[in-house]
Amino acid sequence: MTTIGHYINGESVAPDGRSQPVYNPATGQTEKSVLLASKETVIEAIDAAESAFSEWRNTPASKRARVMFQFKYLLEKNADKIIELIGQEHGKISHDAAGELQRGIENVEFACAAPQLLKGEHSKNVGPNIDSWSEFQPLGVVAGITPFNFPAMVPLWMFPLAIVCGNTFVLKPSERDPSCAIYLAELLKEAGLPDGVFNVVNGDKEAVDVLLTEPRIKAVSFVGSTPIAESIYATANAHGKRCQALGGAKNHAIVMPDADIDNAVNQLLGAAFGSSGERCMALSVVVAVGEETANQLVDKLSAAMADLRVGPAQDADNDFGPLITHEHKTKVKAYITSAEQQGADIVVDGRNIQVKGYENGFFVGATLIDKVMPSMESYQAEIFGPVLQVIRVDSMNTAMQLIDGHEYGNGTCIFTRDGEAARYFSDHIQVGMVGINVPLPVPVAYHSFGGWKRSLFGDLHAYGPDGVRFYTKRKTITQRWPSSGVREGASFAFPS
Amino acid sequence: MTTIGHYINGESVAPDGRSQPVYNPATGQTEKSVLLASKETVIEAIDAAESAFSEWRNTPASKRARVMFQFKYLLEKNADKIIELIGQEHGKISHDAAGELQRGIENVEFACAAPQLLKGEHSKNVGPNIDSWSEFQPLGVVAGITPFNFPAMVPLWMFPLAIVCGNTFVLKPSERDPSCAIYLAELLKEAGLPDGVFNVVNGDKEAVDVLLTEPRIKAVSFVGSTPIAESIYATANAHGKRCQALGGAKNHAIVMPDADIDNAVNQLLGAAFGSSGERCMALSVVVAVGEETANQLVDKLSAAMADLRVGPAQDADNDFGPLITHEHKTKVKAYITSAEQQGADIVVDGRNIQVKGYENGFFVGATLIDKVMPSMESYQAEIFGPVLQVIRVDSMNTAMQLIDGHEYGNGTCIFTRDGEAARYFSDHIQVGMVGINVPLPVPVAYHSFGGWKRSLFGDLHAYGPDGVRFYTKRKTITQRWPSSGVREGASFAFPS
Amino acid sequence: MTTIGHYINGESVAPDGRSQPVYNPATGQTEKSVLLASKETVIEAIDAAESAFSEWRNTPASKRARVMFQFKYLLEKNADKIIELIGQEHGKISHDAAGELQRGIENVEFACAAPQLLKGEHSKNVGPNIDSWSEFQPLGVVAGITPFNFPAMVPLWMFPLAIVCGNTFVLKPSERDPSCAIYLAELLKEAGLPDGVFNVVNGDKEAVDVLLTEPRIKAVSFVGSTPIAESIYATANAHGKRCQALGGAKNHAIVMPDADIDNAVNQLLGAAFGSSGERCMALSVVVAVGEETANQLVDKLSAAMADLRVGPAQDADNDFGPLITHEHKTKVKAYITSAEQQGADIVVDGRNIQVKGYENGFFVGATLIDKVMPSMESYQAEIFGPVLQVIRVDSMNTAMQLIDGHEYGNGTCIFTRDGEAARYFSDHIQVGMVGINVPLPVPVAYHSFGGWKRSLFGDLHAYGPDGVRFYTKRKTITQRWPSSGVREGASFAFPS
Amino acid sequence: MTTIGHYINGESVAPDGRSQPVYNPATGQTEKSVLLASKETVIEAIDAAESAFSEWRNTPASKRARVMFQFKYLLEKNADKIIELIGQEHGKISHDAAGELQRGIENVEFACAAPQLLKGEHSKNVGPNIDSWSEFQPLGVVAGITPFNFPAMVPLWMFPLAIVCGNTFVLKPSERDPSCAIYLAELLKEAGLPDGVFNVVNGDKEAVDVLLTEPRIKAVSFVGSTPIAESIYATANAHGKRCQALGGAKNHAIVMPDADIDNAVNQLLGAAFGSSGERCMALSVVVAVGEETANQLVDKLSAAMADLRVGPAQDADNDFGPLITHEHKTKVKAYITSAEQQGADIVVDGRNIQVKGYENGFFVGATLIDKVMPSMESYQAEIFGPVLQVIRVDSMNTAMQLIDGHEYGNGTCIFTRDGEAARYFSDHIQVGMVGINVPLPVPVAYHSFGGWKRSLFGDLHAYGPDGVRFYTKRKTITQRWPSSGVREGASFAFPS
Repeated sequence: MTTIGHYINGESVAPDGRSQPVYNPATGQTEKSVLLASKETVIEAIDAAESAFSEWRNTPASKRARVMFQFKYLLEKNADKIIELIGQEHGKISHDAAGELQRGIENVEFACAAPQLLKGEHSKNVGPNIDSWSEFQPLGVVAGITPFNFPAMVPLWMFPLAIVCGNTFVLKPSERDPSCAIYLAELLKEAGLPDGVFNVVNGDKEAVDVLLTEPRIKAVSFVGSTPIAESIYATANAHGKRCQALGGAKNHAIVMPDADIDNAVNQLLGAAFGSSGERCMALSVVVAVGEETANQLVDKLSAAMADLRVGPAQDADNDFGPLITHEHKTKVKAYITSAEQQGADIVVDGRNIQVKGYENGFFVGATLIDKVMPSMESYQAEIFGPVLQVIRVDSMNTAMQLIDGHEYGNGTCIFTRDGEAARYFSDHIQVGMVGINVPLPVPVAYHSFGGWKRSLFGDLHAYGPDGVRFYTKRKTITQRWPSSGVREGASFAFPS
Repeated sequence: MTTIGHYINGESVAPDGRSQPVYNPATGQTEKSVLLASKETVIEAIDAAESAFSEWRNTPASKRARVMFQFKYLLEKNADKIIELIGQEHGKISHDAAGELQRGIENVEFACAAPQLLKGEHSKNVGPNIDSWSEFQPLGVVAGITPFNFPAMVPLWMFPLAIVCGNTFVLKPSERDPSCAIYLAELLKEAGLPDGVFNVVNGDKEAVDVLLTEPRIKAVSFVGSTPIAESIYATANAHGKRCQALGGAKNHAIVMPDADIDNAVNQLLGAAFGSSGERCMALSVVVAVGEETANQLVDKLSAAMADLRVGPAQDADNDFGPLITHEHKTKVKAYITSAEQQGADIVVDGRNIQVKGYENGFFVGATLIDKVMPSMESYQAEIFGPVLQVIRVDSMNTAMQLIDGHEYGNGTCIFTRDGEAARYFSDHIQVGMVGINVPLPVPVAYHSFGGWKRSLFGDLHAYGPDGVRFYTKRKTITQRWPSSGVREGASFAFPS
Repeated sequence: MTTIGHYINGESVAPDGRSQPVYNPATGQTEKSVLLASKETVIEAIDAAESAFSEWRNTPASKRARVMFQFKYLLEKNADKIIELIGQEHGKISHDAAGELQRGIENVEFACAAPQLLKGEHSKNVGPNIDSWSEFQPLGVVAGITPFNFPAMVPLWMFPLAIVCGNTFVLKPSERDPSCAIYLAELLKEAGLPDGVFNVVNGDKEAVDVLLTEPRIKAVSFVGSTPIAESIYATANAHGKRCQALGGAKNHAIVMPDADIDNAVNQLLGAAFGSSGERCMALSVVVAVGEETANQLVDKLSAAMADLRVGPAQDADNDFGPLITHEHKTKVKAYITSAEQQGADIVVDGRNIQVKGYENGFFVGATLIDKVMPSMESYQAEIFGPVLQVIRVDSMNTAMQLIDGHEYGNGTCIFTRDGEAARYFSDHIQVGMVGINVPLPVPVAYHSFGGWKRSLFGDLHAYGPDGVRFYTKRKTITQRWPSSGVREGASFAFPS
Repeated sequence: MTTIGHYINGESVAPDGRSQPVYNPATGQTEKSVLLASKETVIEAIDAAESAFSEWRNTPASKRARVMFQFKYLLEKNADKIIELIGQEHGKISHDAAGELQRGIENVEFACAAPQLLKGEHSKNVGPNIDSWSEFQPLGVVAGITPFNFPAMVPLWMFPLAIVCGNTFVLKPSERDPSCAIYLAELLKEAGLPDGVFNVVNGDKEAVDVLLTEPRIKAVSFVGSTPIAESIYATANAHGKRCQALGGAKNHAIVMPDADIDNAVNQLLGAAFGSSGERCMALSVVVAVGEETANQLVDKLSAAMADLRVGPAQDADNDFGPLITHEHKTKVKAYITSAEQQGADIVVDGRNIQVKGYENGFFVGATLIDKVMPSMESYQAEIFGPVLQVIRVDSMNTAMQLIDGHEYGNGTCIFTRDGEAARYFSDHIQVGMVGINVPLPVPVAYHSFGGWKRSLFGDLHAYGPDGVRFYTKRKTITQRWPSSGVREGASFAFPS
């Protein structure tokens, strides 16, 4: 039985206290447990981060960035280990974990540009002989609270950028798959990061509450479900912290009659079922415009789904793995059942899948539901499982109204060949991340990630240029030098 | 008796309902009253703004900016009228009101650059044949809630930028001096702004509560005192709105032993007493480094203060005018008395000033208090009156600790000739706006305004580049075109 | 007989010397003559500009921009006069001149953003306690040499931006239509521009040679034909000047089989025949992909061309006016004849047009030539007349090869509905300004104008962001303050 | 005897042909020879670069950047080898070569930010439903021609940035120390760069002439002396290429009476004598303001210079090494002699230095010349040796006139504590790179390097943001989609 502790001030620590099991979701077994930090442990991490701050903020951005250059190198060198840790605790297939890691590394690459990103604006002569410029200074100690579904990537959205901006960091990863974060901390130390700049505390609500209320924490980045995000945002704000809290999603793809259907089907499979649909950018609803479009789509999707392989992480031939917990598996199946009961067609049913040798794993198979109606519970909720639902409409306009009417506004996509349809859609749709023939329009690391409506609480999106702004505060200096100084002094005793 | 109503959908409206008097603070008399909007009236304004939104957001930014070009001309053409309105209701001397207006116009000038400011970032080939770009789209209907002390400038910090970004606006100005806002609305219409894009509702808490809770209001900009700012921020956030709430200040100037004292004294007079000290950037504390520096400063300040003239707005020879209300006058005098009782030296005492012919005006004279200690009530509070306090310290380090220890972090300044002292100060001081030999370091309109600590609630500063980001939401589009289209189609029947 | 002189140091001057007639191209008559500056006169203008420079470069950018705000207002107020001057000397129809002026005003609007555009980049801590920033300083005296075809717009591409960047300016407009430039100079003075900041010299090669060789001229912007542009660029460079020289064009539109033909025809008419085709962005070649596309296009174009009206400037019902000179008219007709002789079909022939009452005007009618081959002289040259040529190809690929094979690379356009075709085209075509269903893809004033290949000599495009970079030189400052100064001095005699 | 050949299309090649010896300047011996490319060899390199271009320009910028991430690791890993190569052929002491390499690596780090740096500007709705954006596309094959004095750093200023922008590259390094460039090419291949993207040809004027005239070379970056730079610039321009050509320098430091003299002396030693003064940013003239300042400076400098150690590269205790050739040594000594003959004081004389065991090395010792006059030959020329000259003036104004009167305007510096003096100096001095208490104000890699006056020919500075603009051409796309497409088509057959 392995115990996963915390990482504070450059060292692994494992104080006595509460703990809970960490499962392998493919087997349903547990061989590890994770410590749940007490208030004191979290304070200790904050102490360490605070102590490290003043030297770190004075370190030139180029030197801070160089730690990230080295970190990138170590992430690539140790990729297999990270992928394995993700597989063991999250259940994600190795190629999927590798993709997650790659996306994370891209955020490290972006952070390497810190000297460029932190440039302020300089204005000569805002008035006669008066200059003014802005500096983007670090906030101090900042925190990240991250979800189970991307144990490497989502932390990497946050701390590399926060750190190169001059902040110090306390990360509270998901207690479902905590090992990855600890390992990242070790690699950072190896990359040359001074002790205390990055700290990891494992835990549950007790730890979170400290991070949200301790006055020395200046900012909180959160990714999780909408109800929690909303609460985190409110609490952090009430305690004088800057906060960005990313919540849930229900991402729709519109398929237009002129779309290349084979291409769309191919794209949709990965977008809907990859990582068992446990992604906030998972494509979970297809809105087919026109009956014929819908029929073709459903036929081709169900045919293609027959080839999907479900199983444990270490078998790279699998397409996706188990859900994260037994409870979640039960919940996902209940959503499918509710759709069935409310009149939808279960075209492909993954509820009773059996994975040989992994009979106790938390598996649900790929599921396709047709003729879903907006009033159904399965449509309104974020299922977070391998379930793709089809809605049939008769115009693009209706499709867009459907999307705009939903609580969430994270991602969306249109499949079409028509420039005008694409442009109208991207201009008007009330969603923050829009794909044109791209079903998972996750912005690249040098742009920023963020949904609209109840998918994100906060002014600034995650990572990219908005991330830089989030992790810094603007200082504006206005400077005038009085004129009677050494320059205009008398001639300096120069003999003729 | 004039009644000041509201401005909704391009028209002045004055529905029946509650009202309150508007005073001329120089005479203590009232000849006007202002309507206090009911919930229904505010909803009506929001309705108008919402109706105007969809056409306005589709109007090219260059056309939106052209309304601001025209608005600038009209503001300049009608400057005397605006200055007069400010003088009547706020009491500010004409040259001071002219300065306020000029600063406001500079924000209109900045807004004229909308096409440049709204550019998104375009990336070719984020993957093979995949492009991605960002757009900064307007939020919808946004609101501004503004204070009495800058009836023209603070509204002009907000709505020109919000409007050129494509939003529509509801302004609730201070009920102490509401006429200016209504007049600005009329000029905007004359400048060609479509009806409903800009609306003004006068009122009190009832109106504010609607703006903070109505779901169609997407963002709130507020300037006022810190307790109200904090509450506004919490309420707006809890109702899903973006918010920036600017609060109080206690702005310190450090005077170093190498400073040009005559220049410093000259600068401090205007910064401390201009507009009766009713400015969130007023310089209210001088921290003198070294006994000799302090003695010189106090001597020269008190000598110079003997020449200050206090009186009504219309006499341009006056240096400053009355306070805004009788209640506020009483409060300011009480702060002076408390300092006296707690052991400070009242070097120049403005408590009993008499302005001939304006005996009922709300005047307090310029006051200089020496040997103030950090524990005194007069030091801890924002007095918002013509009161300058001197603290004596023996090192720059102590001076900086004092500033960093204060609740507020709006503006600060250092007087020195020494490049290193200036650089150390501007780098490390925990204040958002820093002056080097500039006592009122209000950023110019093309930079952004914002304090740190409890002087600002929100991530983004007011106006300038941060203002653009505040009034827009980021949308990121990722686009790939499938390759089997018209381009690669068969040859088009061209005979050989 | 009116004599048009120069404008130097805030005054109109008309020294004795050479002159030449200015024609009204609609009547073929001359009632004005223009002075041709001697070397001495040009030197006088440079002297004035040099004298004005040091005060102007020290004037805050915001104040420099305010002159442009006022200038915009005066341009709009006096638009009719400008349009009339353009009509008299260039022959452009009033609506076309109004369009030209509007485009010019947009450059003035962009110049109003100078404070934003001139921001340098500031980096805190490039090393320990070392800061570095860039400033974009003006060059000094710069010159513009502009063509006859846009007597208002092309000068407005140049001097507003040069001037707000802090430079002073000498303009040499075309001697064919010089009045407009002189009038712009008068309006600038009325707008508050200090004397000497903007100067106009009329003239020919003698004046140009001075501008290209005088050492005090730091930069030259030129728009004209390619041979002259190339020579200007070489001469200016050899004399140590920065130069951007914009030359000729042969702008092709590809019409794809999926294009909306009616829309394309409608767009092409204006793009080909507007301003008699005397535009460097005129659309002079249509490349039809597929025989059927070509047939439809030619049919619909020739039908629509029957309605085009040709005549003098003052009749707003006319579509376009005369060519600039009798010589040019002869040349354009010769190109049509050469195409005919080399085997092309003259579908609509404008060679023998008669405009009633204007029999001596320099008119050529709208001409459509089909079945043009790349080897024809009319294809290889820039005709600069109302002549549209059609080439028929059987694939988009061939169409693109044709465009890339041409000497020029100014503008181009594709008509299609297909996103992929548009994207492939815009990515790969070797042309600087690309339209997608936009036949005249002139960048808006807040982007930059410039062709590729032999259409532009220089690194930076005209106006917009590149214009700012062109009219400024980068200075990079690196600053460290030694630490033993007043800040760390002994305690300052503070008694305990 | 080692033969150093070329590196073309991913392979070392050594065709028959001309060659010349490569010396070890510390011993005066030669054990290597370098091939001098024929025209055919250069054409072969251009062929390779051209072939590689179309795939490389289509490779996403993020992938191109990843080669540079890897290249940085390899440069760091193989630093010792690079330092040794530099020492053998250039003679630079190991710590100095390490510094050079580090500066070069910083340019690689900057190039890693390519995805951020290449972002274009996107404008929604430049007109109704019309969008416009800019792309910065690569030029094609570009060339670098680099000097002997920084065999690693100057090439690294150029090709990493050119390559990440999507260009392919031909480098012609100095024939004095060619091995470093070849080794960089090998490391690039190891880092994953596709063959042909980077090529090295060694040679002399024959090779250079091909690079300047071959039409497929689209841009040339050059660093060397001013006469050659001027000629390169003219030739490249005349052949239609973009060019930036950096030439000579004469960098002055003003020492003000209030400066910290000990600090200034310490800084000046390294700036004047480091790398034997063979740097275009070497500080070669001190302008002392005031007689007393001058006396102190000369006394302290001559005292400190007694401790400087001169000798071969491999002994890290040496401060600097030999000059590059025997001819150059003779020339530097002649300049010292001319100053002596023209009346200056040779305070410290390095003409007859003997380095034990290296009697045939090209050494000149650190030399200090006082009482230099502007008319002296030694002042007017760039000596490029370990010679520091002192000029005495009686005011800062005179000092600035001296600097502005010199032909060159590369770098300059002021030593002072006074904020106003520093600001006046940096604002007005006609020099491109300005230090405030920083004697070698070489901009960091994320700013740009460039002198003014005859120190740089071209519009854009080297590396940093200007480098990105230099290595790309702007394309502006304007896009409108006609409205009658699939979106507004009829309802799609949806049965009720």
